[in-house]
Amino acid sequence: MFRHPLDPAQVSAQVAAALAEDVGPGDLNAALIDPTQRLRARVMTREAGVFCGRPWVEEIFRVLDPQVALTWAVADGDALTADQTLLTLEGPARAILTGERCALNFMQTLSATATVTRQWSAPLEGKGLTLLDTRKTLPGLRTAQKYAVLCGGGANHRMGLFDAFLIKENHIAAAGGIEAAVNAARAFAPTRPVEIEVETVTEFEVALAAGADLIMLDEFDEEALHAAMAYPRGATKIEVSGNVDPGRLQALAALGVDYVSLGALTKHIRALDLSLRAERA
Amino acid sequence: MFRHPLDPAQVSAQVAAALAEDVGPGDLNAALIDPTQRLRARVMTREAGVFCGRPWVEEIFRVLDPQVALTWAVADGDALTADQTLLTLEGPARAILTGERCALNFMQTLSATATVTRQWSAPLEGKGLTLLDTRKTLPGLRTAQKYAVLCGGGANHRMGLFDAFLIKENHIAAAGGIEAAVNAARAFAPTRPVEIEVETVTEFEVALAAGADLIMLDEFDEEALHAAMAYPRGATKIEVSGNVDPGRLQALAALGVDYVSLGALTKHIRALDLSLRAERA
Amino acid sequence: MFRHPLDPAQVSAQVAAALAEDVGPGDLNAALIDPTQRLRARVMTREAGVFCGRPWVEEIFRVLDPQVALTWAVADGDALTADQTLLTLEGPARAILTGERCALNFMQTLSATATVTRQWSAPLEGKGLTLLDTRKTLPGLRTAQKYAVLCGGGANHRMGLFDAFLIKENHIAAAGGIEAAVNAARAFAPTRPVEIEVETVTEFEVALAAGADLIMLDEFDEEALHAAMAYPRGATKIEVSGNVDPGRLQALAALGVDYVSLGALTKHIRALDLSLRAERA
Amino acid sequence: MFRHPLDPAQVSAQVAAALAEDVGPGDLNAALIDPTQRLRARVMTREAGVFCGRPWVEEIFRVLDPQVALTWAVADGDALTADQTLLTLEGPARAILTGERCALNFMQTLSATATVTRQWSAPLEGKGLTLLDTRKTLPGLRTAQKYAVLCGGGANHRMGLFDAFLIKENHIAAAGGIEAAVNAARAFAPTRPVEIEVETVTEFEVALAAGADLIMLDEFDEEALHAAMAYPRGATKIEVSGNVDPGRLQALAALGVDYVSLGALTKHIRALDLSLRAERA
Amino acid sequence: MFRHPLDPAQVSAQVAAALAEDVGPGDLNAALIDPTQRLRARVMTREAGVFCGRPWVEEIFRVLDPQVALTWAVADGDALTADQTLLTLEGPARAILTGERCALNFMQTLSATATVTRQWSAPLEGKGLTLLDTRKTLPGLRTAQKYAVLCGGGANHRMGLFDAFLIKENHIAAAGGIEAAVNAARAFAPTRPVEIEVETVTEFEVALAAGADLIMLDEFDEEALHAAMAYPRGATKIEVSGNVDPGRLQALAALGVDYVSLGALTKHIRALDLSLRAERA
Amino acid sequence: MFRHPLDPAQVSAQVAAALAEDVGPGDLNAALIDPTQRLRARVMTREAGVFCGRPWVEEIFRVLDPQVALTWAVADGDALTADQTLLTLEGPARAILTGERCALNFMQTLSATATVTRQWSAPLEGKGLTLLDTRKTLPGLRTAQKYAVLCGGGANHRMGLFDAFLIKENHIAAAGGIEAAVNAARAFAPTRPVEIEVETVTEFEVALAAGADLIMLDEFDEEALHAAMAYPRGATKIEVSGNVDPGRLQALAALGVDYVSLGALTKHIRALDLSLRAERA
Repeated sequence: MFRHPLDPAQVSAQVAAALAEDVGPGDLNAALIDPTQRLRARVMTREAGVFCGRPWVEEIFRVLDPQVALTWAVADGDALTADQTLLTLEGPARAILTGERCALNFMQTLSATATVTRQWSAPLEGKGLTLLDTRKTLPGLRTAQKYAVLCGGGANHRMGLFDAFLIKENHIAAAGGIEAAVNAARAFAPTRPVEIEVETVTEFEVALAAGADLIMLDEFDEEALHAAMAYPRGATKIEVSGNVDPGRLQALAALGVDYVSLGALTKHIRALDLSLRAERA
Repeated sequence: MFRHPLDPAQVSAQVAAALAEDVGPGDLNAALIDPTQRLRARVMTREAGVFCGRPWVEEIFRVLDPQVALTWAVADGDALTADQTLLTLEGPARAILTGERCALNFMQTLSATATVTRQWSAPLEGKGLTLLDTRKTLPGLRTAQKYAVLCGGGANHRMGLFDAFLIKENHIAAAGGIEAAVNAARAFAPTRPVEIEVETVTEFEVALAAGADLIMLDEFDEEALHAAMAYPRGATKIEVSGNVDPGRLQALAALGVDYVSLGALTKHIRALDLSLRAERA
Repeated sequence: MFRHPLDPAQVSAQVAAALAEDVGPGDLNAALIDPTQRLRARVMTREAGVFCGRPWVEEIFRVLDPQVALTWAVADGDALTADQTLLTLEGPARAILTGERCALNFMQTLSATATVTRQWSAPLEGKGLTLLDTRKTLPGLRTAQKYAVLCGGGANHRMGLFDAFLIKENHIAAAGGIEAAVNAARAFAPTRPVEIEVETVTEFEVALAAGADLIMLDEFDEEALHAAMAYPRGATKIEVSGNVDPGRLQALAALGVDYVSLGALTKHIRALDLSLRAERA
Repeated sequence: MFRHPLDPAQVSAQVAAALAEDVGPGDLNAALIDPTQRLRARVMTREAGVFCGRPWVEEIFRVLDPQVALTWAVADGDALTADQTLLTLEGPARAILTGERCALNFMQTLSATATVTRQWSAPLEGKGLTLLDTRKTLPGLRTAQKYAVLCGGGANHRMGLFDAFLIKENHIAAAGGIEAAVNAARAFAPTRPVEIEVETVTEFEVALAAGADLIMLDEFDEEALHAAMAYPRGATKIEVSGNVDPGRLQALAALGVDYVSLGALTKHIRALDLSLRAERA
Repeated sequence: MFRHPLDPAQVSAQVAAALAEDVGPGDLNAALIDPTQRLRARVMTREAGVFCGRPWVEEIFRVLDPQVALTWAVADGDALTADQTLLTLEGPARAILTGERCALNFMQTLSATATVTRQWSAPLEGKGLTLLDTRKTLPGLRTAQKYAVLCGGGANHRMGLFDAFLIKENHIAAAGGIEAAVNAARAFAPTRPVEIEVETVTEFEVALAAGADLIMLDEFDEEALHAAMAYPRGATKIEVSGNVDPGRLQALAALGVDYVSLGALTKHIRALDLSLRAERA
Repeated sequence: MFRHPLDPAQVSAQVAAALAEDVGPGDLNAALIDPTQRLRARVMTREAGVFCGRPWVEEIFRVLDPQVALTWAVADGDALTADQTLLTLEGPARAILTGERCALNFMQTLSATATVTRQWSAPLEGKGLTLLDTRKTLPGLRTAQKYAVLCGGGANHRMGLFDAFLIKENHIAAAGGIEAAVNAARAFAPTRPVEIEVETVTEFEVALAAGADLIMLDEFDEEALHAAMAYPRGATKIEVSGNVDPGRLQALAALGVDYVSLGALTKHIRALDLSLRAERA
């Protein structure tokens, strides 16, 4: 299994938007730098974490000036310690200084997601419980954040509304019941995965019988959870969603829950502390 | 003083990117809902905070289906309590369910910034110290986040590299000194503001003499700070940047510091907890 | 089950591209028409078929001139006879004549796909065999053509490379076997459907054991097909792809094959014969 | 005379749209392939035809990964036999497999048009009758299809509404007669070509007298056609449009008709049967 | 003959670019205006001229705020006197002030072209000589400027490189002579107009014999010009290009020259002096 | 001080728009040139001036064909004499001829602004008076024209509505006075420059007291001007705007006026006379 091959068009669009908002009609400050001046600089950590962001940084300097040479000391997904060098940049000073903040912003934001994902997922290794992300992401950065989740050791739930069914209360009411909703989904898009969100053990039983690929247990208490997990469930997978603490994850794993999905991986951001330091000649 | 009139083209581009990544080639789930079905739903808080995000939510439903009627119970910048209704939506069920997550993502992300800004800025009211944001923002969302800072009671520092000089070490070295750098900036763009980042009191003195509009004191210790603030400084404003705690803000205000800039306002995000609840007919 | 809610952004982009290539810097011919002149015109069939194309036609006239009123006599998916009125347009003559060819081009192309799909799928009704489309589509029109397949009574296979695994020879070789490839896919994206293309009964058996969601039998002869269909297959679905004739579809249905996928639905086009006729006042 | 120099911006936009709809947020399947793995593959024909599509295939791999080396065995416009190698690709396996379907879709669609054009135009060689295309094209692919018509030996009629007048019934009615319409067109855009569509010999005579550059005979019967072709017509050219069979083309050529325009060249598509085959190391 | 129906997509793209460069991330100044404040303002001339620009101004306020009501006192192409009201705007003060400069910039630039065109073309009325524009235009504004030429009473030469042949020295050399070049053009695009630029009477004679639709006499002296105009020329039209003074135009008209093309109409701009004046309540 | 580092994204967008309007669906004329033919050509001046335009010309040929080699004899900002070679191009003839007109249009338009700016600014050298541009620019070309002003020796006023306050009559009325308006601006965006436009000496006095960074004297007569310039004004700068003649500039400089802003630099264009001449082999 290899890292997700990001669509270069997405990386490129995200970088273009970021440069447009930072450079706008032109970098005033670069006017103070001789266009022939060269610079050598390093991006350093100030704290530990997990790295993510290389494709975006590469695209930034490809766009600004392909003469900036990037030498990476880390790959996406690598564990970082404080005061570690991530990257050395060498080339025209103007382009390095123009791109500095954009590059740091991508790295600090995406490494935040990779780092928190690793914190949650590392203790689960080998326990049979997989950590999933959600659609609770920063607008415009979903594909980037989902890649960061992979870098942190989590897995991706659906990308958006287009690649899987998640049948909720409203759909069930509209279809006239869980079974009818599953049948409608199968008839409409027979090869798409169908997940159902259930709130009671009774609903769970119906969803199982309807042949859902995935069932999400929504705010099940301990008793309901045990009851549900006691059913034989064939190919159907079980997801628990919502506010769990790390300790509870182990218990869920022990019960045989397949997935826990956590909005916190992508909706909260604690930017990794990074800095770019110019080296003196 | 009124709220910043956002460029509608920016809001529109940010919403288009968010919808594209969530809806992509089409919302599968909406296929389970009769196109004529109508829905009434409310967006509610689960915790207290400060609201931000109306223009983005309005744009989302304008794009998806202008028949969705939005009735707002709050305006951007309003303080929120837990379990408060922010917005009632009424219209075609498909469009409401398709836009739900995008709308929540904008509101939870931007309200995060408005909320943290209010926490920092409220105690400063009337103290003569203004809280500024930085360029440490989420890629693609800078204008949105800077608007959220205004909603929270902070003020905006420069938007990007294009609207002010911030003369740092590299520029000073390139120009051959602080005074030469200021002169170069004035010659190049005489009506643009010139800020200088200084690391010592000696540099501060030179920057003051050079007529900087704004001087940023970078990691000054207590003694250096007092020394700097003792200089008569005419029209020049003083900014302190970096890691400060709330208590220290009061001390800085008492010393006559004009601005404190905080990357934390926009680089860290603790998404406000919101939910959309359908109402039964 | 309802028709697929198309992403309006996709329809809009496809229409913008079509208008740009036809109208370019401006419609010379419209200069011969008084801007105040009004026209009433009808779009008629010259042959039987199945209709598809309303959202694109509506977008064309929304962009060109919202004063053109469209009165539809048919909905997407309706069966058409020759000499039937599909649509009446009334409004400014310039806009109707400027949009005429673009509108006809969308309708004749998409109705072609709906029509051929209906021809293949109608005899299968109630037989338990579903007709699927493929990724063999007209560049730039995939979402539109996949919607046309739905209108014709077929179902959609994956939209693209992003929403399902289809493990082929190269992936199996890279992973070191079918089982390893399925495991890699499950580990990478646990909630995505996994399909495997197999060429022999032996491979089929391995794919079944590996728990594929879907297995595609590639050029199986009669004997191999019967052998494969004799296996108990739990939740796994079976797809036959490639060159089949209508008669063979019935045999495949009888054998319990779940899906037949046909590139011919979308890669070959026999444009439906339509015309726009102005009505005299 | 050389092949039309396509606008690279058009090719690039068509390829971007095609990749976006196929790759979307990222190619899941590529995750199963080691990023360092290399592949050598050939694109082969399964049937005879005329080739078209090189610029689009080159752009696809330029965008996905410039390290994929393309070695072409054919040029646009070349006649193809079954089982012929068109192209050898060598480079990173991921990029080749990601771009495969997009590349085949462009080649099979555009070669379809080149092939059918060659079938119609070859027997006309040296007969003084030129085969023209129309505006009945696949939405978004007009410039590409018109290039394919050139590759097949046909010629291009107007690109769109912007580069020539085609005066029809509605324009004649609006202007108050054929002569008035021609005069209006000449006054408006004196250097643009003016074509008139006529339905009777009387109209033909008026159009000729009005100095049209081109006259299109719309559904003329044999008698009317002979009557029209008997007029001395100076610099005016004659076009016959609509449903003709190959045999009739020879008769039209013998009569001195200058052009026959055929919607069928571009509105119907019978995709050329192509495949990509990986070579084993 | 009516005014050119501009492609709304072009107007919209030109306005979007203009607003982006003026409003950028948001109009700071509008923050000083209460969002509920209304304004009534008039756009006035300070000098005489010919008006052009309505579609762009309408698009500006449609984008910024459709609540701004525009009441036009003039139409494109109208003669203007000094101190004349062109337009009254009434609506939200913010939007009017945000759009003011963009709107004036379009009107002053396009009216400049309409005005100078009228000055050159008015004395030619009824003389049989038509004034043409060229491709010497302001980058990004060609379609707008060509529309302004129509408003001023001139006519449009080709829009760009795509809608007519203009065979020059390099093409003649490449083809091996004028006749060969014309034949190549006719073979390549039989229905496109073919113009040839000639430098001597001998070349003129060859171009005439080759059946050019249009011949451009490049820097012919008086004697050469008379010699050329003495040839019988059938359907071929004659264009004189380059630096002519108004007096010479009459002489050219008398000689029977069909067109004079003037780069000066669109490459030089003397912006019309306009102002927006707020009305007090 | 170095030349402004233009945002490459802006140059690229301006070039894309210009090529789209000139090349559109493809350069017909290039079809007459063998794709393998090479050309060597020079761009020459026909009159004296100041050069501007290199980045746009480089981008044009980078997009059309990177094999065109450009050898520059001048840099932006260089003084030009008549009959001087600016640039030699060597490479594929098609690309050079396709890009010729676009390249000349950028150079002739931007050199016009550089030239007129040099004429106004040269006599001011060392006089302490700086020439500023305005927002009266050609729609879509503002960043390009502001760069040309720098090349001519002028300086840039604000880029747009986003990077500085210019408080005018309407804002003062809205705020309830000059001081209130300045306070509102400072509160809203404390680090942005605040300029006030005043019409009387009394207003000037208030604006000075309010601490404006810049005061624009609007149509002050000689007496008012002298009165204003007699005030001690600390860090506040004085700008005179509007219709001044060159002689008056010296008087304003002598009075101590800091800036004169001239709309004429960018709103009027007298295109520099340039030509491209092919060299014979």
